[in-house]
Amino acid sequence: VTRPATPELPYPDAFEATLIDIFERQIVFNQVLGLKVLAARPGDIRGRFAMRDDLIGTRAHHRLHGGVTASILDTMGGLAITVGIAANHTGDTPEQLAQRFTRMGTIDLRVDYLRQGLGRHFDVTAETVRLGGRVGSAQMRMHNDEGVLIATGTAAYIVS
Amino acid sequence: VTRPATPELPYPDAFEATLIDIFERQIVFNQVLGLKVLAARPGDIRGRFAMRDDLIGTRAHHRLHGGVTASILDTMGGLAITVGIAANHTGDTPEQLAQRFTRMGTIDLRVDYLRQGLGRHFDVTAETVRLGGRVGSAQMRMHNDEGVLIATGTAAYIVS
Amino acid sequence: VTRPATPELPYPDAFEATLIDIFERQIVFNQVLGLKVLAARPGDIRGRFAMRDDLIGTRAHHRLHGGVTASILDTMGGLAITVGIAANHTGDTPEQLAQRFTRMGTIDLRVDYLRQGLGRHFDVTAETVRLGGRVGSAQMRMHNDEGVLIATGTAAYIVS
Amino acid sequence: VTRPATPELPYPDAFEATLIDIFERQIVFNQVLGLKVLAARPGDIRGRFAMRDDLIGTRAHHRLHGGVTASILDTMGGLAITVGIAANHTGDTPEQLAQRFTRMGTIDLRVDYLRQGLGRHFDVTAETVRLGGRVGSAQMRMHNDEGVLIATGTAAYIVS
Repeated sequence: VTRPATPELPYPDAFEATLIDIFERQIVFNQVLGLKVLAARPGDIRGRFAMRDDLIGTRAHHRLHGGVTASILDTMGGLAITVGIAANHTGDTPEQLAQRFTRMGTIDLRVDYLRQGLGRHFDVTAETVRLGGRVGSAQMRMHNDEGVLIATGTAAYIVS
Repeated sequence: VTRPATPELPYPDAFEATLIDIFERQIVFNQVLGLKVLAARPGDIRGRFAMRDDLIGTRAHHRLHGGVTASILDTMGGLAITVGIAANHTGDTPEQLAQRFTRMGTIDLRVDYLRQGLGRHFDVTAETVRLGGRVGSAQMRMHNDEGVLIATGTAAYIVS
Repeated sequence: VTRPATPELPYPDAFEATLIDIFERQIVFNQVLGLKVLAARPGDIRGRFAMRDDLIGTRAHHRLHGGVTASILDTMGGLAITVGIAANHTGDTPEQLAQRFTRMGTIDLRVDYLRQGLGRHFDVTAETVRLGGRVGSAQMRMHNDEGVLIATGTAAYIVS
Repeated sequence: VTRPATPELPYPDAFEATLIDIFERQIVFNQVLGLKVLAARPGDIRGRFAMRDDLIGTRAHHRLHGGVTASILDTMGGLAITVGIAANHTGDTPEQLAQRFTRMGTIDLRVDYLRQGLGRHFDVTAETVRLGGRVGSAQMRMHNDEGVLIATGTAAYIVS
C-alpha cells in the first residue's frame, strides 16, 4: 500500500494518526466490523476489513451481509469529508477541529449492491465529490481481494 | 405487541416461525446486531433491537452507528419482500420457496438519517410498496423507544 | 378535491396563494410540465398534471418520461418543506420569508419507478418527514387517475 | 468533441445512429429538453443541452430546474445501459435488439445536486458500472460549460 505524495497540502501526519484512531477505535462499531484505515489524507482515503463468519448474510452462501457493506461505505465517506474539513482548516487548534466534527453527520446514504459480497477481505475507497460550507457529498467504492467491484455508495453529510 | 388478524390470507404460522429463524439466526450478522423479529406476516413486518455499547458511533455521544441503522433497515425491507413472495406462492413446497429466496437480493438501499440515534431500543417496521415479477420495493421506518422517528429507508430488491 | 381543516395553524390563505403562484408560474419549468398545485398547506401538499404527448418517454408506449416524474416529485417535496418553513415562521414579514427561501435547495433526490407511467393525469402528494434547523426530508407519492401508485420519492433539502 | 477509438468492439456506426435517433427524437421529452447525444458507444456516452429560459427553476436566479437535471441524468444512464446491452448482443437482429429494449426500465434514480445549475450549456457523461443479466447500474455526471461539476447521479435499471 503506497501513499501518493501530496506535498502542496500542509496536512500533518498527526492529523492522520488522530483520525485513524477515531475511526478505528472511538467509533466502536467500526471496531466490531474490524475496519482498518489505511490512509486518511486529502485525495487518499482507504480502508480494509477482513471477511469473518459473523459478518455474513447467510450461512449457506457465506456472503457479506449488505449492512456491513453499508456500514463501511458510510464510515469511509464520512472519513473523506472529515479529512476535507481538516484540510480546509489547518490553522485550527485540535479543539476547534473537534468542535467542527461534532456538528457533522450523515444526511443520507445510497448503496448499490453490484455483485455478491464474496472475498477474503474488502478494500474501500472514498472520494469527496463536493465539500461546501453546509453540505458535503462523497462517493465510495468497495472491491474484494481479487479487485472485483462489489458495491458503490453515495452519501450526503451536513458539515456545519 | 399484538398481531392484527389477517384471516383472508392462508399464511401459515409455520412460515412465520421459519422466516423468524432465518432472519434472527441464519443471517449471522443480524444475530450480532441482536435483531428480534416480532412479526413476519403480510401487512405486519416488525423488528426490534436493543442499544448496546458496541453498536455506537462515538463513545462521546452514545449514538447508534449509522451502519447499524442501515443494516437493520435493509434486513427488514428484505423480510417484507420475502413475506410478500411467500404469500404469493402459498402452494409452494418449502423447497420451492427456498429456491425462490436464493434468487433474491438487495439491488440498492437509501437511508435517511433524520435524528440522532438515541434510545434504549429501536423498533423497525417495513412495508412492501410494490412487488412485481422481477423487482420489489420496500419502505422502512425506525423509531426509538420514545416513539421518535430516527430514520427512514427505501430499498429495491431483485426477486427472480 | 377537499381540503382538511387545520384550524390550529395560523396559516394564512394569502401564503398559500403566493406559494401556488411561485410554484406554478415563477418556477418556469413547472409551467412547461403543466403542474397545478391543488393544496399548499401544512399536512396537505397536493399537485396534479395532465398527460401530454410531449411528456412521454417513447412514442410507441405513450408512457410518462421518468424525468417528468422526477421533476414533479422534487418540486412537490420542495413545496412541502417550503410550507413547513413558512408554518414555523408565521411572524415573518414576506421579505423575511422570501429571504429564507433563497437559502433553500435540494441536496439529493431518490425516485422509485414502481409501475409504468400510464394515465390521463397524475396526482402527487408530499409529506415533510422531518424539518430541522439545517436539513429537511420529504417523501412523495405519485398516483395515476385510476389511483395506481406509479412512483415514490424521497428528497433531502438544505433549509438554512 | 472527439470520439475515442474503440476498434476492438464490433460496434457498428449504424447502431449509434439508431440510438441517437431514438434518444433525441423518439423519446419525445428529450426533444423538449433539447438533448443532443454526442456519443453512444461503449465507454463513451455523452450528451449536451443548452440552457433555455423555459428550463429554469426560478426567474430570479436563472438556475436550471432540478427536474431537468434528473431527466437528463436518467436518460443518459439509460443510454449507457442500452449501449451495453447492444454491445453484448452484436449478433442480434435489429428486431431482437428492439425486443430487448422494450423490457428495459429505470428501477430507481438518485441525483445529488452539488452546485447551482448555472451555465450556458451542460455536458453529461454516463458510465455503466455493472451490467448483469437482470439488473444494470450506471453513474452519471453533469458539468456546465466552464467544466464545473453540477450534479451526479446513480441509477439502477431492469434489463430483462
